[in-house]
Amino acid sequence: MSALLRIAEADVDEIALGAAVLGTGGGGDPHVGSLIAKRMIRLNGAVTTLRVDELTADDFVVPIGGIGAPSVSVERIQAESELLQALRAIERAVGRKATALMPIEVGGGNSMIPIATAAAAGLPIVDGDAMGRAFPEAQMVTFHLAGYGPGTTVLVDHHGNEVVMRPVGGAWSERLARAVTVEMGGSATMIDYAYDGVIVKECAIPETLSLARRIGRILLGRTDAAIKDDARITALCAELDAVRLFEGKVADIQRTVEGGFTKGAAELHGIGDDRGSRMRLDFQNEMLLARRDGVLAAVTPDLIAVLDLATGPPITTESLRYGARVAVIAMPCDAKWRTPVGLATAGPAHFGYDVEWIPVEGLMSGRKAAA
Amino acid sequence: MSALLRIAEADVDEIALGAAVLGTGGGGDPHVGSLIAKRMIRLNGAVTTLRVDELTADDFVVPIGGIGAPSVSVERIQAESELLQALRAIERAVGRKATALMPIEVGGGNSMIPIATAAAAGLPIVDGDAMGRAFPEAQMVTFHLAGYGPGTTVLVDHHGNEVVMRPVGGAWSERLARAVTVEMGGSATMIDYAYDGVIVKECAIPETLSLARRIGRILLGRTDAAIKDDARITALCAELDAVRLFEGKVADIQRTVEGGFTKGAAELHGIGDDRGSRMRLDFQNEMLLARRDGVLAAVTPDLIAVLDLATGPPITTESLRYGARVAVIAMPCDAKWRTPVGLATAGPAHFGYDVEWIPVEGLMSGRKAAA
Repeated sequence: MSALLRIAEADVDEIALGAAVLGTGGGGDPHVGSLIAKRMIRLNGAVTTLRVDELTADDFVVPIGGIGAPSVSVERIQAESELLQALRAIERAVGRKATALMPIEVGGGNSMIPIATAAAAGLPIVDGDAMGRAFPEAQMVTFHLAGYGPGTTVLVDHHGNEVVMRPVGGAWSERLARAVTVEMGGSATMIDYAYDGVIVKECAIPETLSLARRIGRILLGRTDAAIKDDARITALCAELDAVRLFEGKVADIQRTVEGGFTKGAAELHGIGDDRGSRMRLDFQNEMLLARRDGVLAAVTPDLIAVLDLATGPPITTESLRYGARVAVIAMPCDAKWRTPVGLATAGPAHFGYDVEWIPVEGLMSGRKAAA
Repeated sequence: MSALLRIAEADVDEIALGAAVLGTGGGGDPHVGSLIAKRMIRLNGAVTTLRVDELTADDFVVPIGGIGAPSVSVERIQAESELLQALRAIERAVGRKATALMPIEVGGGNSMIPIATAAAAGLPIVDGDAMGRAFPEAQMVTFHLAGYGPGTTVLVDHHGNEVVMRPVGGAWSERLARAVTVEMGGSATMIDYAYDGVIVKECAIPETLSLARRIGRILLGRTDAAIKDDARITALCAELDAVRLFEGKVADIQRTVEGGFTKGAAELHGIGDDRGSRMRLDFQNEMLLARRDGVLAAVTPDLIAVLDLATGPPITTESLRYGARVAVIAMPCDAKWRTPVGLATAGPAHFGYDVEWIPVEGLMSGRKAAA
């Protein structure tokens, strides 16, 4: 299927749904984000996309998104004025006019905010992002892996408070931004890693908005070949090189909002072929670790997504509820995350999980061999 | 005695000592601040002063100081580079070159930081400040009382992290700046309420650096009339219209660093004429409330200062120690703090003290009448 050339109102739900799968439960609420994006497109017209490989030194690409606990942002719709205030703040602070927006992560609501901003500002959006998924911390981006700092960082809240930071490194960006976000009420609009087109071309993971739309179309049954409801997750796994880890019912869920994150764990009791087994999922905004009967099944930076078993849509860590029947799928992350610096930045040890990172393919082939 | 025309290295200790009295125990450590100010004057020459009434629309006056718990700042000397980074950041953010520095408060170290910065930048300093004393929170300034917000606010730490905030109001400035300061390690260089000369002329409390120097000279015995050690506190009270509240020995001291503040209380056992009585002092960076045998003796926004009984120098809330023999004096605050908005901003209720504000003069005359 060809790449996405422009984003019209009808494309938004497809992208939002697909981005929620790639967002592995985090990245902000896709529904709330899609409402803003659709409204801005309705008011201002469709958004043109730019391919990562067509960016040049003349471009100044601004990644914009939400920071904070999804538990808070789900209850808060960002206003057009907040998005444009952030955009104008970075332009003023850097002394350069934005030529394009970009999602910092392709997950959930954070794929929607840049679409909304692009529509409101009359600018194109880059078809790519800096994670190829969603991650909970600000420095978990491909720019950081390539040695680029967050640069000038902007936070704006719904009161109109505006904070421009020049942190000395990615970890400082995360610390300071998180503290400000907590004070702002747990949710804010953020711009960081705003860079020249040449650097974005070097770092961004291309065509992730296109990929999100393909995923969304499969889950919505809008593909060329009509796929029946119960086959959609299978079709999705084929599209993503993903594996179906588990099917089960949510038997227990612990979730707290602490330090600006939604943290917790869910326990699933197996159904169907998985009856008699249990799966534990650990999350920090995103799903990060899946263990089947105490044995590692998949772990960050590989992607773990939880889908509603009946209808296909992905479930965020915030909306996961007791009794839900879900399928857990896992897929390989972008190769940039499988390098030593990638694993040090977003591997299990960073999150305090005492497991070795093993690629999800290796885990699954091992499991199949043992079965 | 005439006002201060320029600040040479020899003036610094006098101003620091006097500012520590006006700082009522807070405003940062005067000794550490004086070391920076003297070093910058030694390297760059004396600092010229400007009278508040000679400011014009051509002036852009930058108040600079430290924010955070004195318990932390006492262990950290701000570098010249940190001060100049903050100055350049406000100039860049506002798009205007500074023409003068000013103390935001005349207390302790925060009277020294702008002297050091003025020397380093080759700029004059305004002989005045925005409190006429020291207060613990960022919005407790005469600009706020006149209806002016904090404007563009800059925070810089010793790592080189730089945060520029445009908060929507004074209370937001305080909340956001405090959260960032805690994350920066509990102490940072701050610029806020940087305003045009006309606004500073309207709001600033004039000649507080001159007043600080006069106080310092009295305590150092450098006045024209030679005053003996034990008469210095009496001479000081005459100069300040201050009353001697109590003499005692520190019998108990509770002090914690929480939320970026040094908070606590001290219990004094009376000596001399005050034998048999007790005084409790409550503080939050600054001394805020004095009770004698459970009865209100003085309360914020009036000034309460604790002086070493033997030698005269003021004691900060951070350096108050068990066993110290001290004199507690109190003096009227500037009239701007005695308005309804002044009392709402920095009166006892704001700090959670369940006492009515009564001017220190009224309390003392009442006490004398009862005696």
